[in-house]
Amino acid sequence: METKGSSINQEAVITPQQLFEHWQAHRGLTRKVIAIFPEDELFNFSIGGMRPFADMVKELLAIAEPGLKEIATGKKEELNENLMVNTKLQLLEMWDKTSETLPGLWEKLSTDAFQKSILAFGQYEGTIISTILYFIDNEIHHRGQSYVYLRALGITPPPFWER
Amino acid sequence: METKGSSINQEAVITPQQLFEHWQAHRGLTRKVIAIFPEDELFNFSIGGMRPFADMVKELLAIAEPGLKEIATGKKEELNENLMVNTKLQLLEMWDKTSETLPGLWEKLSTDAFQKSILAFGQYEGTIISTILYFIDNEIHHRGQSYVYLRALGITPPPFWER
Repeated sequence: METKGSSINQEAVITPQQLFEHWQAHRGLTRKVIAIFPEDELFNFSIGGMRPFADMVKELLAIAEPGLKEIATGKKEELNENLMVNTKLQLLEMWDKTSETLPGLWEKLSTDAFQKSILAFGQYEGTIISTILYFIDNEIHHRGQSYVYLRALGITPPPFWER
Repeated sequence: METKGSSINQEAVITPQQLFEHWQAHRGLTRKVIAIFPEDELFNFSIGGMRPFADMVKELLAIAEPGLKEIATGKKEELNENLMVNTKLQLLEMWDKTSETLPGLWEKLSTDAFQKSILAFGQYEGTIISTILYFIDNEIHHRGQSYVYLRALGITPPPFWER
Protein backbone atom coordinates (compact mmCIF):
# COMPACT_ATOMS: atom_id res chain seq x y z
CA MET A 1 0.00 0.00 0.00
CA GLU A 2 1.53 3.26 -1.11
CA THR A 3 0.90 5.30 2.01
CA LYS A 4 2.24 2.70 4.41
CA GLY A 5 5.31 3.81 6.25
CA SER A 6 5.44 7.05 4.31
CA SER A 7 4.18 10.45 5.29
CA ILE A 8 0.51 11.21 4.73
CA ASN A 9 -0.48 12.64 1.39
CA GLN A 10 -1.79 16.05 2.47
CA GLU A 11 -3.79 16.34 -0.73
CA ALA A 12 -5.82 13.18 -0.05
CA VAL A 13 -9.32 13.44 1.38
CA ILE A 14 -8.48 10.13 3.03
CA THR A 15 -5.61 7.71 2.44
CA PRO A 16 -6.11 3.95 1.97
CA GLN A 17 -4.42 3.33 5.31
CA GLN A 18 -6.68 5.82 7.11
CA LEU A 19 -9.79 4.28 5.56
CA PHE A 20 -8.67 0.82 6.64
CA GLU A 21 -7.95 2.00 10.19
CA HIS A 22 -11.35 3.69 10.27
CA TRP A 23 -13.04 0.41 9.33
CA GLN A 24 -10.96 -1.63 11.80
CA ALA A 25 -11.78 0.81 14.60
CA HIS A 26 -15.47 0.27 13.86
CA ARG A 27 -14.91 -3.50 13.83
CA GLY A 28 -13.23 -3.17 17.21
CA LEU A 29 -16.26 -1.43 18.65
CA THR A 30 -18.60 -4.07 17.18
CA ARG A 31 -16.47 -6.76 18.81
CA LYS A 32 -16.95 -5.03 22.18
CA VAL A 33 -20.72 -5.12 21.63
CA ILE A 34 -20.68 -8.85 20.80
CA ALA A 35 -18.57 -9.49 23.91
CA ILE A 36 -20.89 -7.54 26.23
CA PHE A 37 -24.06 -9.30 24.97
CA PRO A 38 -25.41 -12.12 27.20
CA GLU A 39 -25.05 -15.31 25.11
CA ASP A 40 -28.70 -16.38 25.16
CA GLU A 41 -29.96 -12.90 24.20
CA LEU A 42 -27.29 -12.57 21.53
CA PHE A 43 -28.86 -15.49 19.67
CA ASN A 44 -32.50 -15.06 20.68
CA PHE A 45 -33.44 -11.54 21.76
CA SER A 46 -35.42 -9.56 19.23
CA ILE A 47 -37.57 -6.42 19.01
CA GLY A 48 -40.35 -5.89 16.48
CA GLY A 49 -39.65 -9.10 14.58
CA MET A 50 -36.09 -8.09 13.76
CA ARG A 51 -33.21 -10.56 13.69
CA PRO A 52 -31.28 -11.36 16.87
CA PHE A 53 -27.94 -9.53 16.91
CA ALA A 54 -26.01 -12.79 16.28
CA ASP A 55 -27.71 -13.05 12.87
CA MET A 56 -26.70 -9.47 12.05
CA VAL A 57 -23.13 -10.31 13.09
CA LYS A 58 -23.21 -13.34 10.77
CA GLU A 59 -24.17 -10.97 7.96
CA LEU A 60 -21.23 -8.70 8.84
CA LEU A 61 -18.89 -11.71 8.86
CA ALA A 62 -20.31 -12.91 5.53
CA ILE A 63 -19.56 -9.51 4.03
CA ALA A 64 -16.20 -8.39 5.46
CA GLU A 65 -13.68 -11.07 4.51
CA PRO A 66 -15.33 -12.52 1.37
CA GLY A 67 -16.24 -9.01 0.23
CA LEU A 68 -12.74 -7.63 0.62
CA LYS A 69 -11.28 -10.81 -0.90
CA GLU A 70 -13.43 -10.29 -3.99
CA ILE A 71 -12.37 -6.63 -4.17
CA ALA A 72 -8.69 -7.47 -3.71
CA THR A 73 -8.46 -10.49 -6.00
CA GLY A 74 -11.28 -9.97 -8.52
CA LYS A 75 -12.40 -13.55 -7.88
CA LYS A 76 -16.19 -13.89 -7.44
CA GLU A 77 -17.43 -14.61 -3.92
CA GLU A 78 -20.78 -15.88 -2.66
CA LEU A 79 -22.73 -14.02 0.00
CA ASN A 80 -23.37 -16.75 2.55
CA GLU A 81 -24.88 -15.56 5.83
CA ASN A 82 -25.87 -19.03 7.03
CA LEU A 83 -22.78 -19.56 9.13
CA MET A 84 -22.78 -22.55 11.44
CA VAL A 85 -22.10 -20.58 14.58
CA ASN A 86 -24.02 -21.26 17.79
CA THR A 87 -21.97 -19.76 20.58
CA LYS A 88 -20.66 -16.33 21.43
CA LEU A 89 -17.13 -17.74 21.61
CA GLN A 90 -17.35 -19.09 18.05
CA LEU A 91 -18.70 -15.74 16.87
CA LEU A 92 -15.83 -13.87 18.52
CA GLU A 93 -13.29 -16.36 17.11
CA MET A 94 -14.66 -15.82 13.59
CA TRP A 95 -14.56 -12.07 14.19
CA ASP A 96 -10.90 -12.26 15.23
CA LYS A 97 -9.98 -14.55 12.34
CA THR A 98 -11.47 -11.98 9.97
CA SER A 99 -9.50 -9.20 11.71
CA GLU A 100 -6.30 -11.16 11.07
CA THR A 101 -7.09 -11.73 7.39
CA LEU A 102 -8.26 -8.27 6.36
CA PRO A 103 -4.87 -6.45 6.51
CA GLY A 104 -3.27 -8.83 3.99
CA LEU A 105 -6.21 -8.38 1.62
CA TRP A 106 -6.19 -4.60 2.04
CA GLU A 107 -2.47 -4.53 1.14
CA LYS A 108 -3.40 -5.75 -2.34
CA LEU A 109 -5.42 -2.60 -3.03
CA SER A 110 -3.44 0.09 -4.78
CA THR A 111 -4.40 3.74 -4.29
CA ASP A 112 -5.87 3.91 -7.79
CA ALA A 113 -8.17 0.89 -7.23
CA PHE A 114 -10.92 2.70 -5.33
CA GLN A 115 -12.63 4.44 -8.26
CA LYS A 116 -12.91 1.21 -10.25
CA SER A 117 -16.28 -0.44 -10.84
CA ILE A 118 -17.26 -3.72 -9.22
CA LEU A 119 -20.29 -6.02 -9.05
CA ALA A 120 -19.97 -7.11 -5.43
CA PHE A 121 -21.11 -10.67 -4.70
CA GLY A 122 -22.20 -10.85 -8.34
CA GLN A 123 -25.13 -8.52 -7.69
CA TYR A 124 -24.31 -5.14 -6.10
CA GLU A 125 -23.11 -2.55 -8.59
CA GLY A 126 -20.79 0.20 -7.47
CA THR A 127 -17.23 1.36 -7.25
CA ILE A 128 -14.76 -0.16 -4.86
CA ILE A 129 -14.96 2.92 -2.62
CA SER A 130 -18.78 2.92 -2.59
CA THR A 131 -18.73 -0.82 -1.80
CA ILE A 132 -16.29 -0.47 1.09
CA LEU A 133 -18.27 2.47 2.49
CA TYR A 134 -21.38 0.27 2.25
CA PHE A 135 -19.65 -2.46 4.28
CA ILE A 136 -18.74 0.07 6.98
CA ASP A 137 -22.10 1.87 6.98
CA ASN A 138 -24.00 -1.42 7.14
CA GLU A 139 -21.99 -2.43 10.21
CA ILE A 140 -22.67 0.91 11.94
CA HIS A 141 -26.39 0.58 11.06
CA HIS A 142 -26.79 -2.88 12.60
CA ARG A 143 -24.57 -2.10 15.58
CA GLY A 144 -26.78 0.94 16.23
CA GLN A 145 -29.71 -1.48 16.37
CA SER A 146 -27.82 -3.68 18.84
CA TYR A 147 -27.51 -0.66 21.15
CA VAL A 148 -31.31 -0.58 21.44
CA TYR A 149 -31.37 -4.32 22.16
CA LEU A 150 -28.77 -3.86 24.90
CA ARG A 151 -30.59 -0.88 26.45
CA ALA A 152 -33.86 -2.85 26.37
CA LEU A 153 -32.00 -5.61 28.26
CA GLY A 154 -30.78 -3.07 30.84
CA ILE A 155 -27.17 -3.25 29.64
CA THR A 156 -25.07 -0.13 28.96
CA PRO A 157 -23.42 -0.38 25.52
CA PRO A 158 -19.84 0.80 25.01
CA PRO A 159 -19.60 4.51 24.09
CA PHE A 160 -20.04 4.99 20.33
CA TRP A 161 -16.99 7.25 20.12
CA GLU A 162 -14.70 4.82 21.97
CA ARG A 163 -12.85 2.95 19.21
CA MET B 1 -14.25 22.59 -5.10
CA GLU B 2 -11.64 21.16 -7.42
CA THR B 3 -13.47 18.06 -8.58
CA LYS B 4 -16.70 19.83 -9.40
CA GLY B 5 -17.58 19.68 -13.04
CA SER B 6 -14.24 18.09 -13.87
CA SER B 7 -13.44 14.44 -14.42
CA ILE B 8 -12.87 12.25 -11.38
CA ASN B 9 -9.34 11.96 -10.04
CA GLN B 10 -8.74 8.23 -10.58
CA GLU B 11 -5.98 8.28 -7.97
CA ALA B 12 -8.28 9.49 -5.19
CA VAL B 13 -9.68 7.01 -2.67
CA ILE B 14 -12.67 9.37 -2.61
CA THR B 15 -13.09 12.88 -3.98
CA PRO B 16 -14.55 15.76 -1.92
CA GLN B 17 -17.62 15.75 -4.19
CA GLN B 18 -18.17 11.99 -3.73
CA LEU B 19 -17.83 12.30 0.05
CA PHE B 20 -20.34 15.12 0.10
CA GLU B 21 -22.80 13.18 -2.06
CA HIS B 22 -22.34 10.17 0.21
CA TRP B 23 -23.26 12.27 3.25
CA GLN B 24 -26.20 13.90 1.51
CA ALA B 25 -27.53 10.51 0.41
CA HIS B 26 -27.46 9.42 4.05
CA ARG B 27 -29.23 12.66 5.04
CA GLY B 28 -31.87 11.90 2.43
CA LEU B 29 -32.52 8.49 3.96
CA THR B 30 -32.72 9.99 7.46
CA ARG B 31 -35.27 12.49 6.16
CA LYS B 32 -37.41 9.58 4.91
CA VAL B 33 -37.29 8.04 8.38
CA ILE B 34 -38.35 11.30 10.05
CA ALA B 35 -41.21 11.61 7.54
CA ILE B 36 -42.47 8.05 8.09
CA PHE B 37 -42.51 8.39 11.92
CA PRO B 38 -45.90 9.04 13.53
CA GLU B 39 -45.62 12.51 15.09
CA ASP B 40 -46.50 11.57 18.66
CA GLU B 41 -44.07 8.60 18.68
CA LEU B 42 -41.37 10.69 17.03
CA PHE B 43 -41.32 12.95 20.10
CA ASN B 44 -42.27 10.44 22.80
CA PHE B 45 -41.58 6.81 21.91
CA SER B 46 -38.57 5.28 23.63
CA ILE B 47 -37.02 1.88 24.34
CA GLY B 48 -34.79 1.09 27.32
CA GLY B 49 -34.65 4.67 28.54
CA MET B 50 -33.16 5.95 25.29
CA ARG B 51 -34.07 9.31 23.78
CA PRO B 52 -37.05 9.63 21.44
CA PHE B 53 -35.92 9.81 17.81
CA ALA B 54 -36.80 13.54 17.60
CA ASP B 55 -34.11 14.25 20.21
CA MET B 56 -31.56 12.28 18.18
CA VAL B 57 -32.57 14.26 15.10
CA LYS B 58 -32.06 17.49 17.04
CA GLU B 59 -28.53 16.27 17.80
CA LEU B 60 -27.94 15.59 14.09
CA LEU B 61 -29.22 19.07 13.23
CA ALA B 62 -27.05 20.63 15.94
CA ILE B 63 -24.02 18.93 14.40
CA ALA B 64 -24.44 19.12 10.61
CA GLU B 65 -24.71 22.79 9.75
CA PRO B 66 -22.84 24.34 12.70
CA GLY B 67 -20.20 21.61 12.46
CA LEU B 68 -19.57 22.10 8.76
CA LYS B 69 -19.69 25.88 9.19
CA GLU B 70 -16.93 25.65 11.80
CA ILE B 71 -14.89 23.38 9.50
CA ALA B 72 -15.40 25.65 6.49
CA THR B 73 -14.86 29.00 8.14
CA GLY B 74 -12.67 28.22 11.15
CA LYS B 75 -15.06 30.22 13.32
CA LYS B 76 -15.92 28.49 16.63
CA GLU B 77 -19.43 27.06 16.92
CA GLU B 78 -21.42 25.93 19.95
CA LEU B 79 -22.99 22.47 20.12
CA ASN B 80 -26.58 23.28 20.98
CA GLU B 81 -28.98 20.34 20.84
CA ASN B 82 -31.78 22.10 22.69
CA LEU B 83 -33.61 23.19 19.59
CA MET B 84 -37.06 24.65 20.06
CA VAL B 85 -38.80 22.20 17.77
CA ASN B 86 -42.08 20.55 18.74
CA THR B 87 -43.61 19.28 15.51
CA LYS B 88 -42.57 16.91 12.77
CA LEU B 89 -43.10 19.65 10.21
CA GLN B 90 -40.68 21.98 11.99
CA LEU B 91 -38.13 19.18 12.21
CA LEU B 92 -38.43 18.48 8.48
CA GLU B 93 -38.21 22.19 7.69
CA MET B 94 -35.01 22.49 9.72
CA TRP B 95 -33.68 19.37 8.00
CA ASP B 96 -34.38 20.90 4.57
CA LYS B 97 -32.91 24.25 5.54
CA THR B 98 -29.71 22.45 6.54
CA SER B 99 -29.71 20.57 3.21
CA GLU B 100 -29.85 23.91 1.39
CA THR B 101 -27.00 25.40 3.42
CA LEU B 102 -24.51 22.53 3.37
CA PRO B 103 -23.47 22.70 -0.32
CA GLY B 104 -22.31 26.33 -0.03
CA LEU B 105 -20.27 25.48 3.06
CA TRP B 106 -18.79 22.36 1.44
CA GLU B 107 -17.67 24.47 -1.54
CA LYS B 108 -15.32 26.34 0.79
CA LEU B 109 -13.34 23.16 1.52
CA SER B 110 -10.34 22.70 -0.73
CA THR B 111 -9.08 19.19 -1.46
CA ASP B 112 -6.08 19.71 0.81
CA ALA B 113 -8.22 20.74 3.80
CA PHE B 114 -9.22 17.25 4.92
CA GLN B 115 -5.98 16.21 6.63
CA LYS B 116 -5.85 19.38 8.73
CA SER B 117 -6.41 19.26 12.48
CA ILE B 118 -9.49 20.71 14.13
CA LEU B 119 -11.01 20.98 17.61
CA ALA B 120 -14.67 20.55 16.68
CA PHE B 121 -17.12 22.51 18.83
CA GLY B 122 -14.15 23.52 20.95
CA GLN B 123 -13.80 20.03 22.40
CA TYR B 124 -13.47 17.18 19.88
CA GLU B 125 -9.94 16.71 18.57
CA GLY B 126 -9.38 15.25 15.14
CA THR B 127 -8.72 15.98 11.52
CA ILE B 128 -11.34 17.44 9.24
CA ILE B 129 -11.80 14.05 7.54
CA SER B 130 -12.15 12.19 10.85
CA THR B 131 -14.64 14.82 12.04
CA ILE B 132 -16.79 14.60 8.90
CA LEU B 133 -16.73 10.80 9.06
CA TYR B 134 -17.86 11.09 12.68
CA PHE B 135 -20.80 13.29 11.65
CA ILE B 136 -21.86 10.67 9.05
CA ASP B 137 -21.26 7.64 11.27
CA ASN B 138 -23.14 9.23 14.16
CA GLU B 139 -26.14 9.79 11.88
CA ILE B 140 -26.08 6.16 10.65
CA HIS B 141 -25.79 4.97 14.26
CA HIS B 142 -28.83 6.87 15.51
CA ARG B 143 -30.87 6.18 12.39
CA GLY B 144 -30.14 2.47 12.91
CA GLN B 145 -31.67 2.88 16.36
CA SER B 146 -34.73 4.54 14.85
CA TYR B 147 -35.25 1.45 12.68
CA VAL B 148 -35.78 -0.60 15.87
CA TYR B 149 -38.22 2.02 17.18
CA LEU B 150 -40.17 1.85 13.91
CA ARG B 151 -40.23 -1.97 13.86
CA ALA B 152 -41.38 -1.99 17.49
CA LEU B 153 -44.21 0.33 16.38
CA GLY B 154 -45.13 -2.05 13.56
CA ILE B 155 -43.86 0.31 10.84
CA THR B 156 -41.58 -0.85 8.01
CA PRO B 157 -38.58 1.50 7.70
CA PRO B 158 -37.27 2.52 4.27
CA PRO B 159 -34.64 0.10 2.90
CA PHE B 160 -31.17 0.98 4.22
CA TRP B 161 -29.63 0.78 0.75
CA GLU B 162 -32.23 3.09 -0.84
CA ARG B 163 -30.57 6.50 -0.90
